[in-house]
Amino acid sequence: MTHMANRASIVLLSGGMDSATAAAIAKADRWKLHAIAIDYDQRARAELEAARRVAAFLGAESFRILTVDLRALGGSALTDDIDVPKDRADMGSGIPVTYVPARNTVLLSLALAAAETTGAEAIVIGVNALDYSGYPDCRPAFLEAFEQVAATGTKQGIEGRAPEILAPLVDMTKADIVTRGTELGVPFEHTLSCYDPVEEANAWLHCGRCDACRLRRKGFDEAGIEDPTPYVGD
Amino acid sequence: MTHMANRASIVLLSGGMDSATAAAIAKADRWKLHAIAIDYDQRARAELEAARRVAAFLGAESFRILTVDLRALGGSALTDDIDVPKDRADMGSGIPVTYVPARNTVLLSLALAAAETTGAEAIVIGVNALDYSGYPDCRPAFLEAFEQVAATGTKQGIEGRAPEILAPLVDMTKADIVTRGTELGVPFEHTLSCYDPVEEANAWLHCGRCDACRLRRKGFDEAGIEDPTPYVGD
Repeated sequence: MTHMANRASIVLLSGGMDSATAAAIAKADRWKLHAIAIDYDQRARAELEAARRVAAFLGAESFRILTVDLRALGGSALTDDIDVPKDRADMGSGIPVTYVPARNTVLLSLALAAAETTGAEAIVIGVNALDYSGYPDCRPAFLEAFEQVAATGTKQGIEGRAPEILAPLVDMTKADIVTRGTELGVPFEHTLSCYDPVEEANAWLHCGRCDACRLRRKGFDEAGIEDPTPYVGD
Repeated sequence: MTHMANRASIVLLSGGMDSATAAAIAKADRWKLHAIAIDYDQRARAELEAARRVAAFLGAESFRILTVDLRALGGSALTDDIDVPKDRADMGSGIPVTYVPARNTVLLSLALAAAETTGAEAIVIGVNALDYSGYPDCRPAFLEAFEQVAATGTKQGIEGRAPEILAPLVDMTKADIVTRGTELGVPFEHTLSCYDPVEEANAWLHCGRCDACRLRRKGFDEAGIEDPTPYVGD
């Protein structure tokens, strides 16, 4: 892809390694980054701190936290009092309990509002369909449907300037993401993937056992790159 | 339309007469109503009180206010410090300053999350494309695009049970809405349309001059039905 230099994009940062890598790819592709992180009353509020660090590290033009109370709706181990599953044998099959209802639809709708307000021409999201196919809202068909929402439901869209949805990781494996992110200097040590992190000495440690930690570890293993993640018990 | 009795629906209530009428139509069509109202830091918080009254009056199974801070994004006279336009001559042409960026996308995404959590089979929204064509996210093309998002981006959708988007007012004039709502006993006197209401003696008066008030008045006029709205100066 070639772009005019430095057009504005809205980048959804979760604090995790995928969104950080997606943002770094957009930056390398000469997009200006306006970062937003969504606080949906997630238990892992450490993610918001990680998102802020990633935005600063990548030189984002702005960083804004938007709040939306998905917790009031319930329905997920990430926002409810359901236990985060550990060491589960069936990881990757079915829709996991950590799935947040309509999460990416909500995130993209807020990013779309931000894009419309700022005139941004793209929305960058770090979804990935390969390693974790249990999430329906990480698949290309969903992203294409959302692009139609942007094209039909906004002032920009009516004027033929609907923001593109950029999902540069959608077909990458976790190992690909680790490799590409490392090439681009993504500060993986500042990212947080864990669904159940532990605070220790003003830092957050990854549990190492939830689905997200195991995918993260596997990614570094398969990429043959040393894992800088601080895990519990290391 | 015929339906199995009493399937659950998520109803978006704004406190206004359109969403109240849409909800009443859904109820008449034997949908159970789970009402949600969205607090997007709108200046007219009186709308939330009106939404609660409407939900109670219509016998909704539940009423829940979800909060999302669209105001942080700016960009609309409904959420910003831009003046609400009064008595404007060009009402109905172009996209009004009161357009909230991506509002219906955000509202529907939260309703979709609620539908997924509760297993609701429909989302009811009171959008109307005829009288107020300046809002891009009130048109059938937008609603169809959002149905595709629901079909592709949710657990229900993957299982072939994506919620329908019901927009019973989409092709109605304001006068049609007044007439149908009156037939169904919608408590119009408890609804609030005004973008700039005035509190007086613990009640909210409509300003009578903003676009929303003028459309409302025109609707009652054209329907030949007495307008029960408390206006400033009446």
